Amino acid sequence: MIRSAQAKHPNAPASEARKAVVLLSCGLDSATVLAIARARGFACHALSFRYGQHHRAELGAARRIARALGAVAHKTVRIDLRAFGGSALTADIPVPKNRSTREMERGIPITYVPARNTVFLSFALAWAEVLGARDIFIGVNALDFSGYPDCRPAFIRAFQRLADRATRIGAEGGRFRIHAPLMKWNKAEIIRAGLALGVDYGITLSCYDPGPGGRPCGRCDACLLRAKGFRELGIPDPALNR
Amino acid sequence: MIRSAQAKHPNAPASEARKAVVLLSCGLDSATVLAIARARGFACHALSFRYGQHHRAELGAARRIARALGAVAHKTVRIDLRAFGGSALTADIPVPKNRSTREMERGIPITYVPARNTVFLSFALAWAEVLGARDIFIGVNALDFSGYPDCRPAFIRAFQRLADRATRIGAEGGRFRIHAPLMKWNKAEIIRAGLALGVDYGITLSCYDPGPGGRPCGRCDACLLRAKGFRELGIPDPALNR
Repeated sequence: MIRSAQAKHPNAPASEARKAVVLLSCGLDSATVLAIARARGFACHALSFRYGQHHRAELGAARRIARALGAVAHKTVRIDLRAFGGSALTADIPVPKNRSTREMERGIPITYVPARNTVFLSFALAWAEVLGARDIFIGVNALDFSGYPDCRPAFIRAFQRLADRATRIGAEGGRFRIHAPLMKWNKAEIIRAGLALGVDYGITLSCYDPGPGGRPCGRCDACLLRAKGFRELGIPDPALNR
Repeated sequence: MIRSAQAKHPNAPASEARKAVVLLSCGLDSATVLAIARARGFACHALSFRYGQHHRAELGAARRIARALGAVAHKTVRIDLRAFGGSALTADIPVPKNRSTREMERGIPITYVPARNTVFLSFALAWAEVLGARDIFIGVNALDFSGYPDCRPAFIRAFQRLADRATRIGAEGGRFRIHAPLMKWNKAEIIRAGLALGVDYGITLSCYDPGPGGRPCGRCDACLLRAKGFRELGIPDPALNR
């Protein structure tokens, strides 16, 4: 039924479509999540953050991705996670390079931003409540980011439980759903799903430490995981030819 | 033991004091909470927000309160809840005036800011994790704000559960505690506890809709509840004589 609503309006959301808030960085994962939410018939409200990260190139990319994948709205909220520091993405700590998969799997990496996904989901919840939306999508993944506590199923379940207790919608009997469709996929599976839904990965940017103009460094964990995904599928990364 | 640590260092935190993050607006409730956390021997890190609320007068007041009550640090984080609107405190919606206690108790008031306490606690959690603190204090109150879902015990419990799952500290076996010491007190009980701890309520500001210079309107829910508290104790509100 939801699919047919989408079929009737391929480029615009059906007025009867349910609204969802979709967390959108400029990376491969969240672009895929937006495509999935759209394919499930949701009117997608994409939410990005400018959080004092080193790579501001990603905001332009997020805007292009939101437009290309048919989000009905896109907001960027500025938040100051640099006020707290504690991560290579929010403080003057070098981003680790050339780590093996085994090294990435060991412990919590320095690129972990304390409570970041909790903060992101809190803002998504605020917008969802104002919109009357009960569905929130997030591109967390427990395989690639096994070290990040806020990328695990127990975290998502705990946030969903919190959302029902935190809000007017919950108090009136509504129930939120936090969707994490990538949770158990590896990078190749994510890319394959996105390609089937028409995602142009050429406009995504995964790097933790991009150079001028958003050029990926090719050596941080995010670049290495992305390259591994494309390699496993036997196809070139379209972002590397631009 | 914690008390004796405080006794040894009356005006500065003992180096052995446990750190806590204390959410601090400029109001009567959070000032009392800061005094309670300090009296329990915590080295208090006060956290305020500038969130596009109409009353910016409160930020100067929060700074004065943090200093007067011995916080070891005070940060103000700017966040943009106006991006979403949906409340008389974040959108161009009039603040209700002259409501009876019965009217205040009915339903969720328009001054409820969607997901506000979830957002505030998320930032507190981020700072706590960077500090290595496991204690977070918040001045929510289920009596005066019975209509706000994010002021109830079930919300606090759900956030505490989330905190353990969201963080490096939790992943390594640590346990957070979200303290809401005012939860079951009425305004008179809160004021009495604060006075016993030396809180100067003359520097606090509770109004939702203050005039120039932070002058309280005297007619919004926050002003009316505050006035009722002082009236029940039979003492004048020191903030009204400045």
